[in-house]
Formats: sequence, C-alpha cells, structure tokens
Amino acid sequence: MQNVNGGLAPVLERIDENLADSLVRVFELVRIPSISTDPAYAGDCRKAAEWLVAQLDLLGFDASLRDTPGHPMVVAHHDGPSPDAPHVLFYGHYDVQPVDPLDEWESDPFDPKVKDGPDGSKIITGRGTADDKGQLMTFVEACRAWKEVYGELPCRVTILFEGEEESGSPSLKPFLRANAEELKADFALVCDTGMWDADTPAISTGLRGLVGEEVTVEAADRDLHSGYFGGAAANPIHILARALADLHDENGAVTIPHFYDGVEETPADVLKQWESLGLTAEKFLGEVGLSIPSGEKGRSVLELTWARPTAEVNGVVGGYTGEGFKTVIPAKASAKVSFRLVGKQDPEAIRRNFRDFVRARIPADCKVSFEEHGGSPGIQLPYDSPVLQKAKQALSDEWPNPAVMIGMGGSIPVVGDFQDLLGMDSVLVGFGLADDRIHSPNEKYALKSYHKGQRSWARIMAALAAR
Amino acid sequence: MQNVNGGLAPVLERIDENLADSLVRVFELVRIPSISTDPAYAGDCRKAAEWLVAQLDLLGFDASLRDTPGHPMVVAHHDGPSPDAPHVLFYGHYDVQPVDPLDEWESDPFDPKVKDGPDGSKIITGRGTADDKGQLMTFVEACRAWKEVYGELPCRVTILFEGEEESGSPSLKPFLRANAEELKADFALVCDTGMWDADTPAISTGLRGLVGEEVTVEAADRDLHSGYFGGAAANPIHILARALADLHDENGAVTIPHFYDGVEETPADVLKQWESLGLTAEKFLGEVGLSIPSGEKGRSVLELTWARPTAEVNGVVGGYTGEGFKTVIPAKASAKVSFRLVGKQDPEAIRRNFRDFVRARIPADCKVSFEEHGGSPGIQLPYDSPVLQKAKQALSDEWPNPAVMIGMGGSIPVVGDFQDLLGMDSVLVGFGLADDRIHSPNEKYALKSYHKGQRSWARIMAALAAR
Repeated sequence: MQNVNGGLAPVLERIDENLADSLVRVFELVRIPSISTDPAYAGDCRKAAEWLVAQLDLLGFDASLRDTPGHPMVVAHHDGPSPDAPHVLFYGHYDVQPVDPLDEWESDPFDPKVKDGPDGSKIITGRGTADDKGQLMTFVEACRAWKEVYGELPCRVTILFEGEEESGSPSLKPFLRANAEELKADFALVCDTGMWDADTPAISTGLRGLVGEEVTVEAADRDLHSGYFGGAAANPIHILARALADLHDENGAVTIPHFYDGVEETPADVLKQWESLGLTAEKFLGEVGLSIPSGEKGRSVLELTWARPTAEVNGVVGGYTGEGFKTVIPAKASAKVSFRLVGKQDPEAIRRNFRDFVRARIPADCKVSFEEHGGSPGIQLPYDSPVLQKAKQALSDEWPNPAVMIGMGGSIPVVGDFQDLLGMDSVLVGFGLADDRIHSPNEKYALKSYHKGQRSWARIMAALAAR
Repeated sequence: MQNVNGGLAPVLERIDENLADSLVRVFELVRIPSISTDPAYAGDCRKAAEWLVAQLDLLGFDASLRDTPGHPMVVAHHDGPSPDAPHVLFYGHYDVQPVDPLDEWESDPFDPKVKDGPDGSKIITGRGTADDKGQLMTFVEACRAWKEVYGELPCRVTILFEGEEESGSPSLKPFLRANAEELKADFALVCDTGMWDADTPAISTGLRGLVGEEVTVEAADRDLHSGYFGGAAANPIHILARALADLHDENGAVTIPHFYDGVEETPADVLKQWESLGLTAEKFLGEVGLSIPSGEKGRSVLELTWARPTAEVNGVVGGYTGEGFKTVIPAKASAKVSFRLVGKQDPEAIRRNFRDFVRARIPADCKVSFEEHGGSPGIQLPYDSPVLQKAKQALSDEWPNPAVMIGMGGSIPVVGDFQDLLGMDSVLVGFGLADDRIHSPNEKYALKSYHKGQRSWARIMAALAAR
C-alpha cells in the first residue's frame, strides 16, 4: 500500500460515520423488486443492475452493465495500489426470490425498514436484505470507505454481480467462459453465506451442490369428472404422489439408484468439531417449530445439512386447488424437485437417474416430461490455504468470537464455476444469520451484520494486501 | 287429463316450433356465471335463481326464491288437471363448476354458442350447458309447450332448483327438512344424468355416493430454505405424498381400513347385462387419450365406474408452483380427496377412517387438519317400479334405440336426501353424453339432447299422467 500509512483505523471510523448514508443506499437497492425467476420482473432486474453500475461508477470503478440472454451482469474493475497487488474478484447477486405468500409479510417486502428485532437489536426488513443485496453492499461500502480515506483500494478489485442466482444462473457459465481473461483474479470473495451465530463469524469451506428438476405427469387429454371416470381413468396426482413418496425409504435415505455414488462419510475429527458447536436437533429445528430430524436416521442436524445429500420436493400442484371442492381427475400434475449434492456426486448422473426412477413409475398410457432447473456439484475448499487463514484472522479481529470454518447446506454454484472455468478458489464470507428468513416472508438482515460486515471486508482487504 | 284430448302430438310439435326461442332462453341462463364453489360469484348465483323464478312465473307457476345460508333455492308449484293427478317433484341445479384452466377454453365459457360438433351435429358450448342448466331447461321447455297447447300441465308439478350442487349442497338437507310438506310429491324427477349413447336414452338406477375431504399438513412454522434446512426439517409435501400414495395398493384397491365394509359384489346377471353393452376399456378410456384401467384389477370399466368405490385426489398444492424454481421447504401442503361410495358404505365412517389413516402418517412434530366437503351414501333404485317402467317406455318412444337401465359413477346426493327426508324415490333421466366435458374446459351439450330432451319430458309427463 502506498498512501495508506494511516492504516485500517481511519477506514473503520469512516464506515461508522457512513452507516446512516449506507442504509439509504441499500434501501434504494432493496426497493427494486428484482425477482429473477418471474419474467414479469425482468425490467426491475435490469434496473437493479443499472443502479449498481451507477454506484460503482461514482466510486471510481470502471463499471459496466453486460447483457446476457437472461438478466444482465454487472462487471466493475478498480486498480490496486500497484500492478502486482493481490487481485480479488468479489461476487454477489442482485436478484431476489419471489415474495409469495405475500399476505404473510408484516410489511411490504420492497419497502425496507429498520425495525427493532425480537431481541431488541436493530434489523433491516425486506426481500433481499440478507440474500443478497445487503450482503453485497457490505463490500461496496467497504470499498467506499477505503476510497474516501485514502483515494485508493488496498488491492486490485474486480466485481461481478449477477442477476440470475435465484433462478439457476443460466447465463453465468457462458458469461464466465466468454470473459474468462477479464474476470480471472487470484481468488474470489463470495458474499452469500452466513455467520455461525450473531457473535461468531464463519468461513464456509464446504457447500452442497444443487440439481433442480421439474416433473410433469400427464394422463387423460383433458380434466375428467371423477364420477364418470373415477376408478377407471389414471389420476396423474396419484402417479406423481407415488413417485415422490418413493424417493425416500423409511429411514429417510434417498432411494434413487446410485444416488449415493461419490458420497464419502465425513471424517470423524470434523464431525467431532461440529459436535462441539453444541447445536442440537431440538435447538436447530426448535427455531422453526419442529423437533425431530426428518432425514437419514442416526446423523446430527449439522451433518444432515452440511455433509449429506438430499432429495426435496419444493413445490407440487395438480387438479383443483381453489376455494371449495371440484371433483375432477386432472389431466396433469407437476412437482419441482431439488437435490442437494455433496462430495463427488455427479449432477447430471443424479438428474438422469431421477428421471429414470420417475419414468419407471409412469403407466404405459400416461406421459411424463422433465424440465431442467440448473445443476452444480458440491464443493469442498482446502482448509489450509493462506488466504483463508488471513480472512479468518481479519474476521476474528472484528467480531466478539473467533471465526469458525463451517460447512454449508445451500448451494452457491458460482464457486464451482470459478474453480472449473477460471481456476480460482473462493473465500466464502457472509454475515447472514439463521433467522434471517431468506426465501421466506419477512426476510431481514441484522443492522449489526450490515455494519460489521462492512468493517469485516475493510479488514479482509487490508489483510489480503499485506505481504 | 281434461282438456288435452288432442294428445301428445301437438305438444311435441310446439316444442319443435319453440326450439329457436328455447335456445335464446337457455343462453340467457348460461351467461350468468353462477359458480357456487367460489364466494366471488355469490351474486351471480342469486341472479341465476332470480332469472329462473321469473321464467317459471311467466309460465304460470307459483314460483319463489327461497333464501338459505348459502345460495338460494327456487321453488315453484303448478296444479295438475285434477287434485288427484300424479304429483312430481322436478329437481335440477342452476350452479356450475369453476372454469379453470380458462386458457384451455376455445371460447368464453359464459358466452354460449351453437357450433358444429366434431361429428357434424350441432352442439351448444359453455359452462353449465350440460351440467345442469341445459338439462333443467329441457323440463321447463316441456312444461311451456304443454301450457301453450293446452293451458295446463298433465300432472301436478313442483320444481326445486338448487344452487349448491357443485359445492356439496350444504343447504339442501336443512331446506328439505324445513319444507318437507311443501316439497313432498309422489316421486321425484331428477335431470342431472346422461344417455347411454347419442341414440340410446338411459335411466340411472344406481348412483355412487361421495365424501369430500380437504387435508392440510403443516410442518415448520414458516417456509424454509432447503439449503439451510434440507435433510433435517420435515417437508409437508413428502408427508402428504406418502399419505396419498398409500391410499392405493399395487392392485389399485383402496387401503384405508374398513373401506370396503358394506360393499357388495355386483350380481352376475347385472354384470352380464353391462358386458353386453360392449363398452371396452379401450373404447371408454380411448375417448380421453387413455387405454389402461387404473382402478381395481380384474373388473370392467363399467363395474369400476358404476359399482366400485374409489379414493381420488382431486387437487394438491404445496410449496412454490410459479414460474421457474424456488428451493423452499414449504410450511404446509394440502390436498382435496374424494371418495365415491357404493352399496352400504357409511360416508361418516369413511371420513373418520380416512382421517385416522392420514393422522397415522404424520410425524409427531407436524400437524394435520381436515375440512369436510360434503358426504352422501350410494343409492340403488328398484328396477321394477311402475314409474320407472313408464318413463322407460316414453324414452324408448322418442329415441332411435330403447332406453336402458344403467349405473352411474357420479353422485347425486339429492336422490338420497329425497329418500331419507321426503320418503320419495327418484327417476333419474338426463340427456348428457360422455363427451360433454362437464367439469372440464369446453363443456358442451348436444343440440339434439336439448331438443329431444324437451320432447322426452313432454312424453314422460303424459305417460305418468296416464292411469
């Protein structure tokens, strides 16, 4: 670093001073309903991307909006203090999940507010506050503070924000391939994960992959009256229910042939470390009103959610679902099914075997069709990388408790893509909390996460820059 | 009959002359979207009832609209030629099924039209044309012709039109109980059934009963992210799919304990008669794009749909069902399930046993709730009643082929209610055809059914009046 002899302290002070203004900025972004999965909101996705380009431009980045066949990418570059300074690629996503059921939101999902949380601490409410708009803004605000104090950044920074993370990232791989030279950095910083708890930052070193499938069973060529045809005509809901029920055996294991190929048992010492975190099933599930682990028997909830694969039905619909009753045998029924993958499970083999599994349960006079909704393998990052260790120390300096290395149940396909297409490892740091209700009504982000998240990134940038 | 010495012929001629005008009238009724199952259409249900009262009033009936806790009843009385003339209660329903999926209709369901059908014959299109507005109007128009020709009707007629048949008839029993003296007649004429084929009229002597149930499974107290919680948190779609799949065994039989209590095997001679009708599975199911009977193995499609009970899932919904994909574990999932009953199956026992069956499949930390949607036992009418025989002859005189006595897969709870509450048998005569698409998009009614249906009722009234 050249002109940053004052060190980190003024940058952290500037972040504290900027907090109120930084809230105004993230509110502007949250107000844009950039729901990527619903074509009706395509214009809003573009608007969110344009807003980010404008923000980064103001900060002195060379920022641009890049069209894709789907929602646009935002790419921005900023020099470091020297051409050989470390070069990071920061990744986040500006798209958000749908908001239904809307009537369960306590306030408008796209009118963010600062409120008092249940424990008295401040929270920021709104769709995308935690996943991922609030998170990505922690990094932007850290850059702002560095720029305002020193006129430069401590390392070379490339930023990539995508707008299709919540809809399977169809444009991401082609975009990374087409722009590999421009986007390649020493490593990636990915901010789409959570803390261990409100006082304990975490770096996620294992992530489950994801395969999404939509299956539609069709029987008769029209909806039928169940009086006339009931007992003789195939009911696609029955056929689908049977296939979905068959996905799991009585011990909660997935029954698709070869499903567990490539799944390794978690090492005993890792399991022991996780056990020491003290998260019981009662505590983990109790927060959402449950108490009994539903997955494979004989495994802890952390193992089930961090290190075991799943088959999960995310949506099902068929027949009459409105008010009252309609005695119909519907023409079709469909389900959205996803698989969380670990280890070396092959997404395309899982997809193929799932489809065969379902096809084997379709009567000869009925039809089944499948639609693909993305696929990515699980990821396991090296525990011992120096970059991970620097980030861990920086986080430990900021928060009350030292940072922990954890697994992660969710999938962040971009991490695999960065590895495969750009040859880069990723450092996964985020400030979400377990009760953020991401993907659910009343999503929130702790104000403390937003504030100390900015300070954390300022520290991490400094730590990475130090040789 | 006093002043009807000209006999039946002038009445039938008048029906022929009135046909165009009678179409105008039924179109007016079909244009009223009287969907009883959806509260948004309550006003239209009332409007349909008012329209019928006005029509019957013009015909010289003492007609009135009767309020109920749900949609109103229409009751109308007309004297016969003498106080001791036979007294019939004619029943129909003016409410209709919902129209979704709307985009599958070739023309507006509530803008009826006369079109050319696939075989070149004329059809009347629109929701309710066959079920049951077109059908009930065949009787009204027969009365009109009698009145116009002779100034009187050949028998005493009471008319009862209800507006809740498609939503479980919640007001019917209380109304029959409260008005038993007014409504009781020698027997009922119920027009909500079909022909055997386009040339062969039918009298339905057996009807399946119906039990409707809505089941909702609830797991976590909110929608969950399947990354964070997948593999550990209960998924209500899985639980529901398991319960629904378990309803049938691998031979298509229903597995609920005691489900078949009260079900008797159909006598061999009746099965033989049905077999002689020549309706193969390929023919019956081929009309709707299927070929393989899905119910209990080893039984004909006529036995399956006329004489065997069923469990049928009419609707299912849970989780994310919109465009794209959402990796959610939903808080709840629900299904609408109906049972067709025969013989002496007890609707309330079936309901109770179904609920127990589902409850046994709900994990201890999840919840299940049920909503009742009507229940009625199956009906078997006496084959040898003189009234049935008179009606059979009248129908055989009108149509190319003689009338046949058939079973019926659908439920018409009012028939049971007339037996239980008014001590009346019912004669079930209707002119619907198997391809009328009732309850489905593109419902139609054959113009020939509408025309010869009117003529059939004119004949039946004359036959019943003859001592």
